[in-house]
Amino acid sequence: MTLLSTINSPADLRQLSRPQLHQLAGELRQYVLDSVSKTGGHLSSNLGTVELTIALHAVFDTPRDRIVWDVGHQTYPHKILTGRRDQMATLRQLGGISGFPRRDESEYDTFGTAHSSTSISAAHGFAMAAKLKGESRRAVAVIGDGAITAGMAFEALNNAGVPHGGLLGDMLVILNDNDMSISPPVGALNKYFTRLMSGKFYSQAREGAKGLLKNTPLYEFARRFEEHTKGMFVPGTIFEEFGFNYVGPIDGHDLDALIPTLENLRDKPGPQFLHIVTKKGQGYKLAEADPVKYHGPTPFDPAQGIVASSKPAKKSFTQVFGDWLCDQAEADQKLVGITPAMREGSGMVEFHKRFPQRYYDVGIAEQHAVTFAAGLACEGMKPVVAIYSTFLQRGYDQLIHDVALQNLDVTFALDRAGLVGADGATHAGNYDIAFTRCIPNMAVLTPADERECRQLLSTAYQHPGPVTVRYPRGAGAGVDTGTDLSTLPWGQGELRREGGRDVAILAFGTLLQAALGAADALNATVANMRFVKPLDTALVERLARSHGLLVTVEDGCVMGGAGSAVIEHLQAVGLNVPVLQLGLPDAFIEHGDPAKLMALQGLDAAGIERRIRQRLGEPALRAVV
Amino acid sequence: MTLLSTINSPADLRQLSRPQLHQLAGELRQYVLDSVSKTGGHLSSNLGTVELTIALHAVFDTPRDRIVWDVGHQTYPHKILTGRRDQMATLRQLGGISGFPRRDESEYDTFGTAHSSTSISAAHGFAMAAKLKGESRRAVAVIGDGAITAGMAFEALNNAGVPHGGLLGDMLVILNDNDMSISPPVGALNKYFTRLMSGKFYSQAREGAKGLLKNTPLYEFARRFEEHTKGMFVPGTIFEEFGFNYVGPIDGHDLDALIPTLENLRDKPGPQFLHIVTKKGQGYKLAEADPVKYHGPTPFDPAQGIVASSKPAKKSFTQVFGDWLCDQAEADQKLVGITPAMREGSGMVEFHKRFPQRYYDVGIAEQHAVTFAAGLACEGMKPVVAIYSTFLQRGYDQLIHDVALQNLDVTFALDRAGLVGADGATHAGNYDIAFTRCIPNMAVLTPADERECRQLLSTAYQHPGPVTVRYPRGAGAGVDTGTDLSTLPWGQGELRREGGRDVAILAFGTLLQAALGAADALNATVANMRFVKPLDTALVERLARSHGLLVTVEDGCVMGGAGSAVIEHLQAVGLNVPVLQLGLPDAFIEHGDPAKLMALQGLDAAGIERRIRQRLGEPALRAVV
Repeated sequence: MTLLSTINSPADLRQLSRPQLHQLAGELRQYVLDSVSKTGGHLSSNLGTVELTIALHAVFDTPRDRIVWDVGHQTYPHKILTGRRDQMATLRQLGGISGFPRRDESEYDTFGTAHSSTSISAAHGFAMAAKLKGESRRAVAVIGDGAITAGMAFEALNNAGVPHGGLLGDMLVILNDNDMSISPPVGALNKYFTRLMSGKFYSQAREGAKGLLKNTPLYEFARRFEEHTKGMFVPGTIFEEFGFNYVGPIDGHDLDALIPTLENLRDKPGPQFLHIVTKKGQGYKLAEADPVKYHGPTPFDPAQGIVASSKPAKKSFTQVFGDWLCDQAEADQKLVGITPAMREGSGMVEFHKRFPQRYYDVGIAEQHAVTFAAGLACEGMKPVVAIYSTFLQRGYDQLIHDVALQNLDVTFALDRAGLVGADGATHAGNYDIAFTRCIPNMAVLTPADERECRQLLSTAYQHPGPVTVRYPRGAGAGVDTGTDLSTLPWGQGELRREGGRDVAILAFGTLLQAALGAADALNATVANMRFVKPLDTALVERLARSHGLLVTVEDGCVMGGAGSAVIEHLQAVGLNVPVLQLGLPDAFIEHGDPAKLMALQGLDAAGIERRIRQRLGEPALRAVV
Repeated sequence: MTLLSTINSPADLRQLSRPQLHQLAGELRQYVLDSVSKTGGHLSSNLGTVELTIALHAVFDTPRDRIVWDVGHQTYPHKILTGRRDQMATLRQLGGISGFPRRDESEYDTFGTAHSSTSISAAHGFAMAAKLKGESRRAVAVIGDGAITAGMAFEALNNAGVPHGGLLGDMLVILNDNDMSISPPVGALNKYFTRLMSGKFYSQAREGAKGLLKNTPLYEFARRFEEHTKGMFVPGTIFEEFGFNYVGPIDGHDLDALIPTLENLRDKPGPQFLHIVTKKGQGYKLAEADPVKYHGPTPFDPAQGIVASSKPAKKSFTQVFGDWLCDQAEADQKLVGITPAMREGSGMVEFHKRFPQRYYDVGIAEQHAVTFAAGLACEGMKPVVAIYSTFLQRGYDQLIHDVALQNLDVTFALDRAGLVGADGATHAGNYDIAFTRCIPNMAVLTPADERECRQLLSTAYQHPGPVTVRYPRGAGAGVDTGTDLSTLPWGQGELRREGGRDVAILAFGTLLQAALGAADALNATVANMRFVKPLDTALVERLARSHGLLVTVEDGCVMGGAGSAVIEHLQAVGLNVPVLQLGLPDAFIEHGDPAKLMALQGLDAAGIERRIRQRLGEPALRAVV
């Protein structure tokens, strides 16, 4: 019987003595390690928040007090302590609990997170709502050192530190400083945090200096300075300039420091700021040594650690991009590669190593990434912005206003297009076709396999204007990419299968493989469209004139997607052919195995075949999956 | 013969003596006042940048050195000095020069701006490109105190202050501190700037203190402190924490201070930061006294100033919203109104006055605005975010990830939907239908007139989920709004005109009036659709079954727009009726008179009629405009 097994809610935890809380921390850390090693998921960050989670639930009256976890992938200890211990076995699986906080999963999950840097804005909303309603509850935002440097967090700090309409929110921002986003941190602020961490020395030295001054007229002078210019004469912090009461840094693994400090801050009105220092992977030596490797592992043996798979995996699209980027950079001195804090995720480790001067990790700063690229492009450089589909949403205005409007030559490599699997709806790359193709000057390319991904990246790179090339998470069909930098004809798709006159499938992207499978069963024609924009209108018209039904297939939302581009064109030229649009529905799709999810959406070969037969009024020949 | 009339490029200006530059400043200020009073346009901000513009072009080797003007509405002096003096008469008019910098207008316009806070990112791009290419040119970003508090500017500062790949850009950021965005400034940082402005006292006092210390052991201690902890022991600035060399504040209207300071900074490597203080409206008493009133006036007599129009103008949609907001807030204590720095532009002055505790101007911080609203909504408040269509692009990810995914009850009042006229392509609200309707849970409402705008705002407010209500700049048909808070049936359009069986026009939004005009000539059926999403599918199907041609009309982009929603549905239910989609084309549309622009796009009554007749194969009955 462990202590942890008796904790079914934070109320249970609040009954424990301090020594018991210490024991609980040990058990909780082990539980996190055991369950993540079985299910896969985020590890390093969760090992780092064990003590903080215990201290927060011990000190605050959750769920009445609101805790918002920024990014939220560090909430496994929180989930375990708030009634979801046994459900950890279902983490990130279809029908199981999410890897992020979700309002519909628990009342303790006050705000759904996953994209970074939203927590202070949300907590400010909670705090001001409490004021407006006359309630005394507290709002707490827990945010990492990588996330707090994003512009959105600054906007929130700038608002939360001052009164609005005479009301000042009671909120606590906890900066969880672990010197690490997913990739190592970048930027001026991070250096600043490092200086703050060594700040104890200065603060002690300052006290010493004042002691020496005490009997001189300077002392009074200095004292008045401090009153008038808090944060100017004495070492202030940026957070004090923002109106927060700054406390720290303290050791975020020391319950005996955390609990009294949180108790103290809990009882203070107005905006409070606590700076804690933690270690990603804390307590598991292998993860401490390589937190990036243990950031989001697949299942592994904790005793042995992660071992490299013996059988060579198929190359992921991410790797296809990474290889292409190096080869293209080798061939063209003007190439600059930009990532918003996703060096590993975007396959840019090798590029960084080989081309350090042309590699830019701008931190979690998608807005800056896009407009920085625009500035480079104005000077004749050739920026390639590697960005997840879902994160381009953060740079959408910059894409329109700074890049597309000026028709600048920027290539966007959109990884994680379509469904992303275990990360679920928050990270879904479902919308980019719809939200990019409506922008003038933008081109939108959808490679069908690894070879074509490389070719369309080269094609986009050579095109003198803004282009997105979108590709999914994971591996494709296993097609050899080649090593050349050859391009494909601009705006042209290709016929991949000549079938009967009944049905022509127009596939955009990697669902081409499923479409070919369905077409074999149906004897349908299949086109690999390659370009959503500019659309191969000649090919569309030819197929429309020679087939009774067109079927568009894409791994993006149907609303406003590639299929809509096809039907818009058909209507524009007065070609009245029925079109069946297959793609992702108008719904947020939860986490789970991507292949299963696609089958559930009827987007595997069997599903495509079945839905076409339904439309044709034919009976289904295969059993419904 | 004035001095100004001899200046055809900055090279001419560089020949002038200091006294002549003083004279030039006076003439330039007068020229700005004269031309804006004739054409209308931005005034206060341009009167404030006269000396800065002269000093920049005098000191820097433009266009070889790159100046990026944030927002860009303060560039009239720059335009006048860079060969566009005579073109000022065409400012913001169809075919005339833009009110913002544009790369295709002049080589001196290095980067197109209009949305705020992009300049540091772009200038960082210029600076790093110069480094990579081994060129010694300088990059300068000029940014106001309102714009620099936006998250994007912080992301850029965080990157520009540190080396990348061993390279550190030579760039200068000039903070033009005029204590004023369009509305009065808000937020913690603005208070900070005020403290910095009174910083001269402190900096002198500090020097004095060091003098006193000089002969004590403390002096050496303090000196070493300064070296080790620049920006910690002595009054540092946030900008120094970011890695910039901070200079200022200095008087931005004093050429004799500006020019030597800029010369000094020009010759320093690495990131430099100059804080200048200017006065909006400087030199024109009326504008100095009320810079908001003179922010963007229509033509006026400079001797008399702006006088209130005697004939009562038709109520703008902005006013319709402002009135509704007050009435709805009166009726419901839970309403909170949020604007990102657009109190006047969004019609919220009265609301602010009457409901100060429920009014939030968050500054130029669209990302925070949206997620702050999400936080409020979680607590049962009813936030209404008033935001221009074009600025919602800045909060797009937050709309998807924080609001829609959690299906939170937030109402978005989208002003400036469709073409915006004089501000041109940068501010166009063309894309919101396409980029919002593809998001699950979002509803998209398009009122046709003022009364319906009020009703649909009430309808959206009562709907328990996220809704956008989009309406254009300016006045509508003059329909009385009423004073009630009645709602319209959810998801239902209405038949406005029963015509023959040939054509049915499905109008989304205020183009209903033009559609009705065209329908009279054609004897067409007209439906006022009201809802893009949820679409009134029953009405669409009924019209499709009873007409030979459907025509969709909207003041948004055709690609992915409301018309596409119609044809998607028709295809989904297998209704094969021809549809003509009328709306804005896949192109950036320049500034000009909105009515003229709409006519040019064939979206006035005559244009709609003409294009329908073309589609029907009928000869045009009216002359082509």
